Amino acid sequence: MTAQLDNDLLLRALLRQPTERTPVWMMRQAGRYLPEYRATRQQAGSFLDLCKHTELACEVTLQPLERFPLDAAILFSDILTIPDAMGLGLYFAQGEGPKFERPVRTEADIQRLPVPDPGAELRYVTDAVSLIRRELKGRVPLIGFTGSPWTLATYMIEGGSSKNFAHAKGMLYDRPELMHRLLDKLAQSVTSYLNAQIAAGAQALMMFDTWGGILTPAAYREFSLRYAEQIIAGVTKHHEGRDVPLVFFTKNGGAWLEDMATIGAHGLGIDWTQDLGDARRRVGDRVALQGNLDPSILYASPDVIRREVGTVLRSYGHGHGHVFNLGHGIHPEVDPEHAGAMIAAVHELSPQYHG
Amino acid sequence: MTAQLDNDLLLRALLRQPTERTPVWMMRQAGRYLPEYRATRQQAGSFLDLCKHTELACEVTLQPLERFPLDAAILFSDILTIPDAMGLGLYFAQGEGPKFERPVRTEADIQRLPVPDPGAELRYVTDAVSLIRRELKGRVPLIGFTGSPWTLATYMIEGGSSKNFAHAKGMLYDRPELMHRLLDKLAQSVTSYLNAQIAAGAQALMMFDTWGGILTPAAYREFSLRYAEQIIAGVTKHHEGRDVPLVFFTKNGGAWLEDMATIGAHGLGIDWTQDLGDARRRVGDRVALQGNLDPSILYASPDVIRREVGTVLRSYGHGHGHVFNLGHGIHPEVDPEHAGAMIAAVHELSPQYHG
Repeated sequence: MTAQLDNDLLLRALLRQPTERTPVWMMRQAGRYLPEYRATRQQAGSFLDLCKHTELACEVTLQPLERFPLDAAILFSDILTIPDAMGLGLYFAQGEGPKFERPVRTEADIQRLPVPDPGAELRYVTDAVSLIRRELKGRVPLIGFTGSPWTLATYMIEGGSSKNFAHAKGMLYDRPELMHRLLDKLAQSVTSYLNAQIAAGAQALMMFDTWGGILTPAAYREFSLRYAEQIIAGVTKHHEGRDVPLVFFTKNGGAWLEDMATIGAHGLGIDWTQDLGDARRRVGDRVALQGNLDPSILYASPDVIRREVGTVLRSYGHGHGHVFNLGHGIHPEVDPEHAGAMIAAVHELSPQYHG
Repeated sequence: MTAQLDNDLLLRALLRQPTERTPVWMMRQAGRYLPEYRATRQQAGSFLDLCKHTELACEVTLQPLERFPLDAAILFSDILTIPDAMGLGLYFAQGEGPKFERPVRTEADIQRLPVPDPGAELRYVTDAVSLIRRELKGRVPLIGFTGSPWTLATYMIEGGSSKNFAHAKGMLYDRPELMHRLLDKLAQSVTSYLNAQIAAGAQALMMFDTWGGILTPAAYREFSLRYAEQIIAGVTKHHEGRDVPLVFFTKNGGAWLEDMATIGAHGLGIDWTQDLGDARRRVGDRVALQGNLDPSILYASPDVIRREVGTVLRSYGHGHGHVFNLGHGIHPEVDPEHAGAMIAAVHELSPQYHG
């Protein structure tokens, strides 16, 4: 059976089917730039408390949809839920980003990592997905998400964010077989995590490869792309009578689009350092493209935002297969009205490129 | 008259003339990974004190040449000397990187910026260049350097390093005419600064465009590349009977190599996210290439370092026009012996690609 969807533009665009206009959503659309998010966050306590509180996670997921005519909701969560469920002790230090109490450095560390059961340690995520789906009442599709194995591995090995990735790169170059064992365990974990999100109601998926772009071309193929492909091969392709499209996004990965287009993803995320028209010519008709407005353009005035939305739409050009988005998450200091100006411009300017 | 040079491999490689092996130097080769640098730095006081102390700046410039068979020295200095000479009040906050007491935000701020006289406010730089040249005694060429106008502008507008570049991007998109006025003033300043370095004895030049890679392709051409080209047009081309080659390096700029190859630079810096062989095919015989070992490979063991040096050399392939370097500055935590292993491997493995 196919659950009713009032607006399925996102799903059609990702499957490269015709749409009457270009769908639009924003990475981090439920986030700190919204005063209502900051209020709920304060009520919840820590960021992680908010992720783990089913009703409040649902509330913040829906907040941007109350303000803006967006074409998708995306689960409010964090990419580091899997390493947390593996027992590494995730916490967020004030102003320092995510940290792990127990980083992964040795063969024994990797050996003892469990593949988490999404029905147990990650139940709070699938509970949130189910509740959000119910509350969405079919308005727009719900996107589930994960970090890529390589990106999760960098945080797990470094114990948090990093500038030079000394430990992760050291393991990659000195002990590649260990790195592969870790990545394989993560790929298994991500696959069952995504399938649990689909079973709970996610209708599209995103895989964020935030740190793939710090690798050499050869290391990217061996340590990042290969595991993304392994996951995609294992992810449920149809559910509730519909295809479940997946978008793969490597930040700063523009040099490797041809390779990314071969791993079975329906769409690729494109950051703003690429010309979208060039990217389209390079991937041909193999995948849809999602992006790619420079998120910093939202610091500028609404007139400029409208003009730059026009530039992105014109760059992609006529025809289907484009999902409008920022080239990265929306910055916390952005005025919500500027986000609104971007979304309105997509509604207004994109129909001319369709039909 | 041509001053004697015992080793001119770097100059010949940048001019795409035959060499018997691939020359090698390292970005930040005079720096914190060397215990002798840390000792001199402690003696000098702050980082800026060290830059401004002629004898000590000369001493740290020469330190890596005492340890390793490098094919170039590079002036020890900072890219932010020009904004400092413009009166912005450069200082280095512990663990926070460079800061300016008086950032540039308004039309009036830009209006009142002087174009510094390199013979006055920047005399400490040319004094250091002269002394280093004298102390080098013709062993290897001395490289002078600068930041690109766009990169300098980001620090001046943000007041230091930045994650999202809210102010700089805001000005670029909202007040492009103001941004152009600032960049033009910086281009004039950089041109006379580089010419003063050449007059004092610099035999090759590098222009670091550290933040060009955060721009869209269109903004990169308009706000970064255009001013690099303007500077190159105004820089002294021959001095002491020799060509003075210039290398332009945009970090994360791999998507735009074809454009960069047209601005008159003799060489382009390539970071490790590009395959060097692909880069060579894309630029053809228009420019030499400098790079591109992932600096994190120096965290790995000497055997692995040697193997990866081989991969970079093989990727560039046979023929002239390659200067071996890291894809970015050497990390401060690297064991100096690992740097030595890299340099030895270039000496040993590169001759087979020449002659």
